[in-house]
Amino acid sequence: MKIGYVGGGSQGWAHTLINDLAQCGDVAGSVALYDVDHEAAMKNAELGNRVVEREDADGDWTFEAYRELDDALADADFVVCSIQDPPEETFVHDIDVPKEYGIHQPVADTVGPGGILRSMRAIPQYREIAATVREQCPDAWVVNYTNPMTVCTRALYEEYPDVNAIGLCHEVFKFQEQFADIAERYVDDAEDVAREEIHVTVKGINHFTWIDEARWRDTDLFGYLEAELEERKPLKDFEPGSMADASYWVNNYNVAFDLYDRFGLLGAAGDRHLVEFVPWYLQLDDPEGLHRWGIRFTPSSARLPVDDGPTQTERYLSGDEAFEFYESGEEAVDIFRALLGLEPVETHLNYPNEGQVAGLPEGAVVETNALLTGDDVSPLAAGSLPREIRSMVMTHVNNQETLVEAGFEGDLDRAFRAFLNDPLVSIERDAAADLFAELVDRERDYLEAWDLEDADVLATSR
Amino acid sequence: MKIGYVGGGSQGWAHTLINDLAQCGDVAGSVALYDVDHEAAMKNAELGNRVVEREDADGDWTFEAYRELDDALADADFVVCSIQDPPEETFVHDIDVPKEYGIHQPVADTVGPGGILRSMRAIPQYREIAATVREQCPDAWVVNYTNPMTVCTRALYEEYPDVNAIGLCHEVFKFQEQFADIAERYVDDAEDVAREEIHVTVKGINHFTWIDEARWRDTDLFGYLEAELEERKPLKDFEPGSMADASYWVNNYNVAFDLYDRFGLLGAAGDRHLVEFVPWYLQLDDPEGLHRWGIRFTPSSARLPVDDGPTQTERYLSGDEAFEFYESGEEAVDIFRALLGLEPVETHLNYPNEGQVAGLPEGAVVETNALLTGDDVSPLAAGSLPREIRSMVMTHVNNQETLVEAGFEGDLDRAFRAFLNDPLVSIERDAAADLFAELVDRERDYLEAWDLEDADVLATSR
Amino acid sequence: MKIGYVGGGSQGWAHTLINDLAQCGDVAGSVALYDVDHEAAMKNAELGNRVVEREDADGDWTFEAYRELDDALADADFVVCSIQDPPEETFVHDIDVPKEYGIHQPVADTVGPGGILRSMRAIPQYREIAATVREQCPDAWVVNYTNPMTVCTRALYEEYPDVNAIGLCHEVFKFQEQFADIAERYVDDAEDVAREEIHVTVKGINHFTWIDEARWRDTDLFGYLEAELEERKPLKDFEPGSMADASYWVNNYNVAFDLYDRFGLLGAAGDRHLVEFVPWYLQLDDPEGLHRWGIRFTPSSARLPVDDGPTQTERYLSGDEAFEFYESGEEAVDIFRALLGLEPVETHLNYPNEGQVAGLPEGAVVETNALLTGDDVSPLAAGSLPREIRSMVMTHVNNQETLVEAGFEGDLDRAFRAFLNDPLVSIERDAAADLFAELVDRERDYLEAWDLEDADVLATSR
Amino acid sequence: MKIGYVGGGSQGWAHTLINDLAQCGDVAGSVALYDVDHEAAMKNAELGNRVVEREDADGDWTFEAYRELDDALADADFVVCSIQDPPEETFVHDIDVPKEYGIHQPVADTVGPGGILRSMRAIPQYREIAATVREQCPDAWVVNYTNPMTVCTRALYEEYPDVNAIGLCHEVFKFQEQFADIAERYVDDAEDVAREEIHVTVKGINHFTWIDEARWRDTDLFGYLEAELEERKPLKDFEPGSMADASYWVNNYNVAFDLYDRFGLLGAAGDRHLVEFVPWYLQLDDPEGLHRWGIRFTPSSARLPVDDGPTQTERYLSGDEAFEFYESGEEAVDIFRALLGLEPVETHLNYPNEGQVAGLPEGAVVETNALLTGDDVSPLAAGSLPREIRSMVMTHVNNQETLVEAGFEGDLDRAFRAFLNDPLVSIERDAAADLFAELVDRERDYLEAWDLEDADVLATSR
Repeated sequence: MKIGYVGGGSQGWAHTLINDLAQCGDVAGSVALYDVDHEAAMKNAELGNRVVEREDADGDWTFEAYRELDDALADADFVVCSIQDPPEETFVHDIDVPKEYGIHQPVADTVGPGGILRSMRAIPQYREIAATVREQCPDAWVVNYTNPMTVCTRALYEEYPDVNAIGLCHEVFKFQEQFADIAERYVDDAEDVAREEIHVTVKGINHFTWIDEARWRDTDLFGYLEAELEERKPLKDFEPGSMADASYWVNNYNVAFDLYDRFGLLGAAGDRHLVEFVPWYLQLDDPEGLHRWGIRFTPSSARLPVDDGPTQTERYLSGDEAFEFYESGEEAVDIFRALLGLEPVETHLNYPNEGQVAGLPEGAVVETNALLTGDDVSPLAAGSLPREIRSMVMTHVNNQETLVEAGFEGDLDRAFRAFLNDPLVSIERDAAADLFAELVDRERDYLEAWDLEDADVLATSR
Repeated sequence: MKIGYVGGGSQGWAHTLINDLAQCGDVAGSVALYDVDHEAAMKNAELGNRVVEREDADGDWTFEAYRELDDALADADFVVCSIQDPPEETFVHDIDVPKEYGIHQPVADTVGPGGILRSMRAIPQYREIAATVREQCPDAWVVNYTNPMTVCTRALYEEYPDVNAIGLCHEVFKFQEQFADIAERYVDDAEDVAREEIHVTVKGINHFTWIDEARWRDTDLFGYLEAELEERKPLKDFEPGSMADASYWVNNYNVAFDLYDRFGLLGAAGDRHLVEFVPWYLQLDDPEGLHRWGIRFTPSSARLPVDDGPTQTERYLSGDEAFEFYESGEEAVDIFRALLGLEPVETHLNYPNEGQVAGLPEGAVVETNALLTGDDVSPLAAGSLPREIRSMVMTHVNNQETLVEAGFEGDLDRAFRAFLNDPLVSIERDAAADLFAELVDRERDYLEAWDLEDADVLATSR
Repeated sequence: MKIGYVGGGSQGWAHTLINDLAQCGDVAGSVALYDVDHEAAMKNAELGNRVVEREDADGDWTFEAYRELDDALADADFVVCSIQDPPEETFVHDIDVPKEYGIHQPVADTVGPGGILRSMRAIPQYREIAATVREQCPDAWVVNYTNPMTVCTRALYEEYPDVNAIGLCHEVFKFQEQFADIAERYVDDAEDVAREEIHVTVKGINHFTWIDEARWRDTDLFGYLEAELEERKPLKDFEPGSMADASYWVNNYNVAFDLYDRFGLLGAAGDRHLVEFVPWYLQLDDPEGLHRWGIRFTPSSARLPVDDGPTQTERYLSGDEAFEFYESGEEAVDIFRALLGLEPVETHLNYPNEGQVAGLPEGAVVETNALLTGDDVSPLAAGSLPREIRSMVMTHVNNQETLVEAGFEGDLDRAFRAFLNDPLVSIERDAAADLFAELVDRERDYLEAWDLEDADVLATSR
Repeated sequence: MKIGYVGGGSQGWAHTLINDLAQCGDVAGSVALYDVDHEAAMKNAELGNRVVEREDADGDWTFEAYRELDDALADADFVVCSIQDPPEETFVHDIDVPKEYGIHQPVADTVGPGGILRSMRAIPQYREIAATVREQCPDAWVVNYTNPMTVCTRALYEEYPDVNAIGLCHEVFKFQEQFADIAERYVDDAEDVAREEIHVTVKGINHFTWIDEARWRDTDLFGYLEAELEERKPLKDFEPGSMADASYWVNNYNVAFDLYDRFGLLGAAGDRHLVEFVPWYLQLDDPEGLHRWGIRFTPSSARLPVDDGPTQTERYLSGDEAFEFYESGEEAVDIFRALLGLEPVETHLNYPNEGQVAGLPEGAVVETNALLTGDDVSPLAAGSLPREIRSMVMTHVNNQETLVEAGFEGDLDRAFRAFLNDPLVSIERDAAADLFAELVDRERDYLEAWDLEDADVLATSR
């Protein structure tokens, strides 16, 4: 079996894949690494080959770096996508420019001004990936890890409707852990409950997913949320400034529970993500005010490489640091095995809606549970969302669908409609146009597939 | 034929009705006036009877005031609704309290905090009207003029699904006039074009309706909008403060054309209304900034009776002022005649969706053209709205449906969900709760049908 | 204004058009006649020109015959379609061959084996017409009179989605007449009620339309159907053989009322048509048994030209017969005038579903009322059909959609799926295949657009 | 844990349950048997208790018979339904009376005249069961085995929308076996493939389900159907009369493959069932003609108890026959275990549509795969059916929905609409009425919940 890896020069997920394959005894094959940074891909290839040859490694794998995407994907059985534009030319602007217009975003990679610009950059890239898959490995399973998850996965299907693609994201795992903890605290005979033992019904879109059922064995856990909420109240009670030294990823589930409190379902993504989908958490006079919800903004500086020293891969290769095997908790290899027909896996993933979320449009990429068996992904029907939540979700589904269509047409004015309709863009209409134009201008090199010449919004802003 | 008039003590629409009936020769009957202010209703009855007896009057009508709604509606063929709560106890708060929280509303009677509170007050009142219709005159046609138009009409159908009810609003007339003007200016052989000669395709919800076709005879006028837009540019070019002395109802169609510019369809309501449906016109540091769009805020003081002198009715009755017949331009009597089977009328109106706007939910009250014939209202199929516009409209459709359901359940927490989901409520989540609680508190006397005791949102605010 | 007439050599509708245009004073222009029988078109042109020049003629029109469809339609404002394949090579087989397999059809032009073959012949022809309209007169209004009405109209839209096309059929007129009669008999003050005074709500598909509301002025007439039904009972009470000498078009409304009796809505097409949509009227041991419903079969012989004598046109031209003006009752000229913006018309017509019949698929051609104004057709929202009726209708909607798709693909096997799913095809599965293959074989010359080579159904039959 | 068993006096499924529980080591509890034949239930209870006490039995269970349904279901965790009216008073007529009208049914228990009468009898019975569940064990899982599967399951949800109910049927198992066989014959490395190793995508309604995907591991098997079809051709090639001595349940998959041949998907139920859903297999001059498809009619005599000797239970109890443990292949106990949270099960089952079959109505009971975990059933989204198949399926979905609604209203005339719309009822309309009336008359004792007094169809027939 062959895995083609787009973005294979990464310092993070590539190492996890090497770790997991090296410990997987019952599948073998080759990994073809492709990256715009070819050198990074080559180093990962070298690392991979070294690791699997170690005595304590189980798997029989070879790693190779390719200069051309076509070659990397030729005859692949699986394609992994995990890519990122140079943050200093893109992500940094996505965070910092909106801030100047009064729009603060803790993450800026999914929705809001940052998420929209990232979508606009990603759509042409994912068209190319889909087109290459169609040419080189039409039956391959494409596993996407890149954000904006929904838009990237949707663009694959828009370009190549017969693609076999899924999008994977871990946010819901944390909620299984929360429920495992609830089980241990509230249910008499529940001890040492593992995340995997918790069954939650998930529905919505990536980073704005909702849970309306949770069970351990046949015990309902969702009913304990009311008690748990009372315990946690008052929410939003952290001190201003108290998160100043916390991890950028700190999460106290205050927003998730606040959404449960107000809307009856549990928001099922990190609070940092959740607050970006509705306007009422981020209207802050003082950005530090966000700390009160137990979260913080990730500054753009945190998105830049730390220093000019050797990369993680280089440290592994030089022996400065040992590559030690660990339980990654990552499901990718299990998913490969399921799709190869070895052992079914039930997990949550992003997939075009064919009925799994009633009331959301057919074809829109949604996040639910799914059962993966040999060469097949079957989403689990999750029913519908209550109207008030569906309304919030649909605003973004509509925006994402509009962005993909606009991206395929290269129509910047249409993309700006989605920008205006984003709840975080509650600034004045012409300030919004200025912000949009400034972002487009700064990231122009990554937006070549768009028709910037005739865009009305660029002409009229400023 | 009998007309039951709920709110028959009014100083405005009641006079128009007297005027129009007195000039209508081919229908005759009685008008039963009901008003919580019974004295006002009695005076209007006296006025009506005097006017129709004048020599220059054509119609054969009698007017009578009733103390009980039941009696006023007994065996009515038509029921007219045009009611209003005492502004000093309600409307004034709807405008002024949100302002303290940074939410400015030019009208405050449809959506936004003011529109939502008004909806919450109206729903129980319209339940009662519908229940009385069901008892007293189940086959009558109910013609509603009260705002919030959509919610009032929807509440009638929710209480009594077999009701024959329509909601009438004039906003679109002005757009027919605009197009008549465009015809005269752009089309060679078009001179003295009357409003009625313009055929526009209307779709959306009241005060947030959209036009995507306009014709004079078989000439397309919609295509001239592009030229017209260029002529009018730059939009939003009025001086700050320039509207300080203008009428509260001043309208320069700048927002309507700005929506056309950005979204491709013409917003078809007064700019004062349009700006309340999306967040990006009213995010003003200085409220006077709204003047730049050629409109202004109606202050709450303008909603209060001017002084303690005699009312208009009283001036007519005392002879201080002569009641002179005029062309009202009001369609009500034409509509009565159409529903009696005398002459068909095509007009735009508010009616439950049975397919006239594809893509909006069945049963939601929408605004489109309709053909009225004997005892029948048939909406004209108007097709669907483009996704980006449908998205904006659906946010409010969802909110309106939620409000009606919440009103029938008395569930204040559910109403607050609609409040949070209103685009004007882009303030912080707990400020929103405080604002909501304060408004409920001030208007408590008009919200007795709601369960205020157990409302979580009241308990947690402040 | 220019009218392009496809099938302009006809002996029927062409004469009506000449009659009506010659009496229409306020529109003038030219009529371009095209027919595969060019000589017939030339004779009609000569007749038209002679008639309009008569002193008693009002209109200012010129008629000309064209050898090429392109020329006939060039720059047309209206296109009229009324075409027919030579019956002896087509229609005769549509009637006679199924009879040998035990399937009797009174008309055989809409559904059933005959209707399906006719659809299969018509689809390529209507593709060509639509393509020519797109080339020659993209904004013209196309008025179709040819059966199968639904499939012909649908094929126009499938080929050229922006076409402006409607399909006209008179069947519902007769029901307005029936209700006018009911009004006169049941309603006190109703005398000399004209068809046009009756307002019926129509919904369904051509020849299988349903009425669920009927009014004269504001008086409900639908409610009198129950009494009327009792009066007419027992239905199906005509003597076997009693229709032997009746007109082929005899109609006693027995089936229409039987459908009302069983399903609660009135079937609104001639009984001869209605019985072809469901299997349970035509399962006759003795074909004469159909007489009991007050209708009869039109034999194939009646579809052939009577003799070799001069045609109607020739008789007019030779002076053997005088062309006398008459009230045609035909709406075409009124419809032209409405679409020109002169005077609105409300009538029933066939048009793609955009919501006018809730619960039927978007885009399928349905029959409802519509309002015609300048360059615009707006269907009137008619609501949904009860489930049991919708189920019967949907079987045919699905078949018609399948036939059009199959026709565009040339996929005979797919067309055969529709054939099998037709309720009249309740014969054995392989007899059905034989019948289908035999019909295709006999009409092979008219099915050249289909892939007959690779059709599995042809290979396996017999 | 407690199982309430409605129909617990059965000679078939009750023995299987005893067998399976006696071999299930990790769950224990009691089984409460209820049957209108109380004595039979008592004997099964005695048998059950004896068997589980045997040394070779593993399970810890007690069996008890109850005289009242209420008591049997009180506090049950699971309710099993497997009931049958006395065949001599019902089923026999369902088969024999239609035959006199020319309608032959191989099974007569799902659709067609027999299936409709059985539905009409079952609906009131299932209302009662659902009402008892609501009272006695509202959270229990109800597992239905009774036909008509769809209607019985649907009636449970109609009466008690919060019921947890599924319907189980084995027909699809046989197709997994067929595909296992195909795998062995066509796929190189496939040997001894077990049914459970085959993953098929199932969608439709019970006994009219369709397969459009089949895999062994990650190998597509559906693609081999074309070759397999060629191998099996000519279909319908059995000799007339050749099945005269075959089992009533003989199945050669000829109809399943014929449907595949014509419609592209594999019909996934026994041929005996499949032929009852469309009219074109059973239009036989000579009923023996059905043998040509490799199946036969089950005569009504085969539905009657064979003789007056001791029942199977009695033979076990008397020792005349030994109760020996066997692998039942029945999934019930696995399903109990899954719902208790012990081990997930994926299987196909009948459940209200919440999106699992796109394009079929929400709430209608459909058959698809589902994943069963602790206290949860999640159907697997299966996508939509091709239009031509959906059309055939929808006819029956509509009929089943109509029957349930009619049953809850007691409206016999409405039920007759479904009867007329059944494709097997292709006889004349008044013969259909006579047949319906005669069936109702013969089974009158089981139709007391229906309004037989005012039924128009009874009055007018004969």
